[in-house]
Amino acid sequence: MSEPFDAVDVIRAKRDGHGLDDAQIDWVVDAYTRGAVADEQMSALAMAILLNGMDRREISRWTAAMIASGERMDFSALSRPTADKHSTGGVGDKITLPLAPLVAACGVAVPQLSGRGLGHTGGTLDKLEAIPGWRARMSNAEMLAQLEDVGAVICAAGDGLAPADKKLYALRDVTGTVEAIPLIASSIMSKKIAEGTGALVLDVKVGSGAFMKTVDDARELARTMVDLGTDAGVTTVALLTNMQTPLGLTAGNALEVRESVEVLAGGGPDDVVELTLALAREMLAAAGRDDVDPAEKLRDGSAMDVWRRMIAAQGGDPDAELPRARETHVVTAPAEGVLTQLDALKVGVAAWRLGAGRARKEDVVQAGAGVELHVKPGAPVRGGEPLMTLHTDTPERFERALEALQDSWFIAPDGSRPDLLPLVVERIAAE
Amino acid sequence: MSEPFDAVDVIRAKRDGHGLDDAQIDWVVDAYTRGAVADEQMSALAMAILLNGMDRREISRWTAAMIASGERMDFSALSRPTADKHSTGGVGDKITLPLAPLVAACGVAVPQLSGRGLGHTGGTLDKLEAIPGWRARMSNAEMLAQLEDVGAVICAAGDGLAPADKKLYALRDVTGTVEAIPLIASSIMSKKIAEGTGALVLDVKVGSGAFMKTVDDARELARTMVDLGTDAGVTTVALLTNMQTPLGLTAGNALEVRESVEVLAGGGPDDVVELTLALAREMLAAAGRDDVDPAEKLRDGSAMDVWRRMIAAQGGDPDAELPRARETHVVTAPAEGVLTQLDALKVGVAAWRLGAGRARKEDVVQAGAGVELHVKPGAPVRGGEPLMTLHTDTPERFERALEALQDSWFIAPDGSRPDLLPLVVERIAAE
Repeated sequence: MSEPFDAVDVIRAKRDGHGLDDAQIDWVVDAYTRGAVADEQMSALAMAILLNGMDRREISRWTAAMIASGERMDFSALSRPTADKHSTGGVGDKITLPLAPLVAACGVAVPQLSGRGLGHTGGTLDKLEAIPGWRARMSNAEMLAQLEDVGAVICAAGDGLAPADKKLYALRDVTGTVEAIPLIASSIMSKKIAEGTGALVLDVKVGSGAFMKTVDDARELARTMVDLGTDAGVTTVALLTNMQTPLGLTAGNALEVRESVEVLAGGGPDDVVELTLALAREMLAAAGRDDVDPAEKLRDGSAMDVWRRMIAAQGGDPDAELPRARETHVVTAPAEGVLTQLDALKVGVAAWRLGAGRARKEDVVQAGAGVELHVKPGAPVRGGEPLMTLHTDTPERFERALEALQDSWFIAPDGSRPDLLPLVVERIAAE
Repeated sequence: MSEPFDAVDVIRAKRDGHGLDDAQIDWVVDAYTRGAVADEQMSALAMAILLNGMDRREISRWTAAMIASGERMDFSALSRPTADKHSTGGVGDKITLPLAPLVAACGVAVPQLSGRGLGHTGGTLDKLEAIPGWRARMSNAEMLAQLEDVGAVICAAGDGLAPADKKLYALRDVTGTVEAIPLIASSIMSKKIAEGTGALVLDVKVGSGAFMKTVDDARELARTMVDLGTDAGVTTVALLTNMQTPLGLTAGNALEVRESVEVLAGGGPDDVVELTLALAREMLAAAGRDDVDPAEKLRDGSAMDVWRRMIAAQGGDPDAELPRARETHVVTAPAEGVLTQLDALKVGVAAWRLGAGRARKEDVVQAGAGVELHVKPGAPVRGGEPLMTLHTDTPERFERALEALQDSWFIAPDGSRPDLLPLVVERIAAE
């Protein structure tokens, strides 16, 4: 046996509350990727990490070891600085769609490697695939050429980035070890750092529709990821943002593309516009271009120009009619008053059940399915007024979607106000 | 999918510090035995149990579920009550050999299912196999007949008892989850309860040569096991006993058989005699026969008679010459004084390295190998006097055995006294 460590010794060290040293971390991540550390050993270690934690040095080293398991991309040949955004996922979170072309229109290249949805949160690639002809797969060379030419790419991450993370994530999913902040942070950051971006802005969602339910947990995750990016030489900033209620007025693939195009056309819901601009300003500042005002680039149509070129470069037709679901069902307000609650998780689950999301990786999504909101928390409603419209191609899904929406909203007497976090809760930067 | 639970929910419950309910425990143990819960899921659960613990109800139920995974033996047809002893393992711990025939000579049947050694602790079956012709494997029918006829059986446990434990133990061994007191206790007790004994005395060793290094840990394990036995209707008592220094004067298979026969003949080292009698009294009391004095049965030769019949019934020749190692090496005292330390773990490792034990299950042991002590802690020594004799068939092993013995003993100035726990540290009975 030529392995320099025994997996049981590494597990025991973390189990007994000790720090793992750099050589142990490098070895265990590499040996797991090679198969020399077995799944049952890594799951015991993951549980010990979840319960006993890791310090900043350990998490940085763990992330570096995951990056070293695969290829690294390099955008240093580009004529522009690069900046990327990552959201921890929420309901109605279509911000990447207007944000990437907007930041590109401001002179910063955006290499946005994205994923697909699973469960109640949507995936950026699923949303863009609602556009006829658009394709998510690109080679590294195509990606680089489009970044130089158009300035923005939203595409699928290749299998070459952080394969250790891919294997570990699948294991954590079946062993109750997803919820370990060191492992969540290193999973996200290993891919973002390997992707080679110069600056990174993290949108850490907090609330019922997010993975992090409390501000404290979200802050800890954000702080951990900002430290990781900083330690790896990437200018990294995080915003904690509200995911108690859905973002914008739509949750569903084509519905969200339509809303994103409205924002690029200078309209769209206030919260989507506000968060898009807040994240754009952070990305520009992190990339050294805070001299440019992104609001101006929305107004003058240059963000929309980049959007159209970006979609067309990936085979999509920006002028094509977007798919619409065959059936709709309207939910109306039973009484007059003020909408004070509209729960993000329940709306997300309803959209998923209508066909917008998938329960397993292999499932196919419906482009037109989802939930369209007509009012947002804080708005007055009259009895009988439409609250939301459900969209699906398969009307037998309405019943389970309506079950998910039970108690999702609350109408309080006139004069009431919702008790919600602000849209941007907090900003976390390098210390 | 027809499983009533999701393994991830069970893992999460224990991870988050909740108790598992009876149905969850029954399911997870059964599903793991069937393969419906994967190794990587059970190892994550085992780590969560190790770090978050289980309460008395959970441990009892877990044990019952392991028993239910296999067959149960039944000694109720015997004309005598039954009592069994289990030791958590130590160096020079040959107590089962004189104890089983002694208790049988007092009128209580002893069905002693035993194991083999691994690492620095010896195994009872390895010791008895030093006797020419003796065989460890018996059918349940042969065992029952011998218990009725001779009164004592020491044999290998069949594969039918608690197969869940067998699978789980192999998993814990490679995942750093051996050291969980709930899992240690349920592993031992599931086999002892399934074996069907009416009374059980536990010898929980404490000190360097034992699994439990501190009195607190040993007490917790003993209390957990006594509770488990009591909950299962088995009269159970535990003694915490000293394993800071080896028991008796020998560690090694044939060496320990020889010492055991000396005890049965009315001689032998004081500590072996004292512990054998202490455990015999506990077994007799637990089986309702505290009217009999075991010391008398040693003196009058009736324990030796049972020994000879027990060995012969399993094919062994009680009069055969025992194997002796081909080579010996004597370690002498470098100075005059009092031997105040003689470390059990180091002596056990030396015996193992000399060939008395095995590193892997497949290894073959040397019957004659081991360590013979000439002095025990507390005894005065003169410079040049033999401290111990090492025995092996393969003299190239002396060097590594001597390495293991470095700093294993300490000679203090005349008048010093060793600082050791008493032989019997504490007694733990049902509350």
